Amino acid sequence: MLVLGLDPGLRHTGWGVVEASGNRLRFVAAGVVDTRTTDDLAVRLVALHDGLAQVLARYQPNVAAVEHTVVNKNAGSSLKLGHARGVVMFTAAAAGLPVTEYLPMAVKRAVVGTGAAEKEQVAAMIRILLPGSGTYRSDATDALAVAVCHANRTATVSAIGRSIRAAVGGTA
Amino acid sequence: MLVLGLDPGLRHTGWGVVEASGNRLRFVAAGVVDTRTTDDLAVRLVALHDGLAQVLARYQPNVAAVEHTVVNKNAGSSLKLGHARGVVMFTAAAAGLPVTEYLPMAVKRAVVGTGAAEKEQVAAMIRILLPGSGTYRSDATDALAVAVCHANRTATVSAIGRSIRAAVGGTA
Repeated sequence: MLVLGLDPGLRHTGWGVVEASGNRLRFVAAGVVDTRTTDDLAVRLVALHDGLAQVLARYQPNVAAVEHTVVNKNAGSSLKLGHARGVVMFTAAAAGLPVTEYLPMAVKRAVVGTGAAEKEQVAAMIRILLPGSGTYRSDATDALAVAVCHANRTATVSAIGRSIRAAVGGTA
Repeated sequence: MLVLGLDPGLRHTGWGVVEASGNRLRFVAAGVVDTRTTDDLAVRLVALHDGLAQVLARYQPNVAAVEHTVVNKNAGSSLKLGHARGVVMFTAAAAGLPVTEYLPMAVKRAVVGTGAAEKEQVAAMIRILLPGSGTYRSDATDALAVAVCHANRTATVSAIGRSIRAAVGGTA
């Protein structure tokens, strides 16, 4: 299963593709879609969509996982972020991918083991979990962390399913 | 020129098409794209896009005008609105339309003559300006008001251009 992790932002949207088979993870690719601050909002949203559509076409991920933004105090920047996030989620869903949202705390817990982890701890753990991913920009690393979170949860759910099926005498 | 006015919302996005020739306006069509609150956010964004894409394909407007949301105190609802607005602006721009944003105050001033107008005054004026538009839901009426605002501004700009060309001895 190929998981596309996404860390949306109007200026920079991080993306990362991780291959998950059972509880093994493999780094596939990562990057950042940037938009020009000098362009009109609508033009930037099209650029964001087109950049992600290229990623989707190239790597053909099976599912998408998006960081669930914690709303900050500033309603203006929330609105701006919302525009980008809306287009990011739309683009993945329009390509037929199920889109799951994860709270930042859940991502930190999945990657580092605690929801109170620092950004640097998450990045360090991603470098260890996903060899080859170390040289990417922080937005890409954040997106990889969301992908890892999704992969881990799916693996856990599968493992629980296997245990239950084994317990009731079914086949795994 | 066919102007598509848009009043974005995650639950209800109003749209209205107005034909503007010189300073004459004609009502063409209006409606509301609704999404189901029980659906996942990503699914709702796709439904919103698809609904608007149908409107664009059917009426082939030349330009889009979107109400520029005034950010309210609640960052959570701003983020939600941002998702819808992002997809709405993307959908119009991806269809090749220039997208212009107008502040609610500018829309009120264009339609009623004062930026302090009440919602009901705007609706009443739209019914007078655009015969045939009276039976639509308020989101559609709001979208028509944005379209009228854009058409008026364009007409004014054209009129100023004509005056200037006439004054300098050019042809109108």
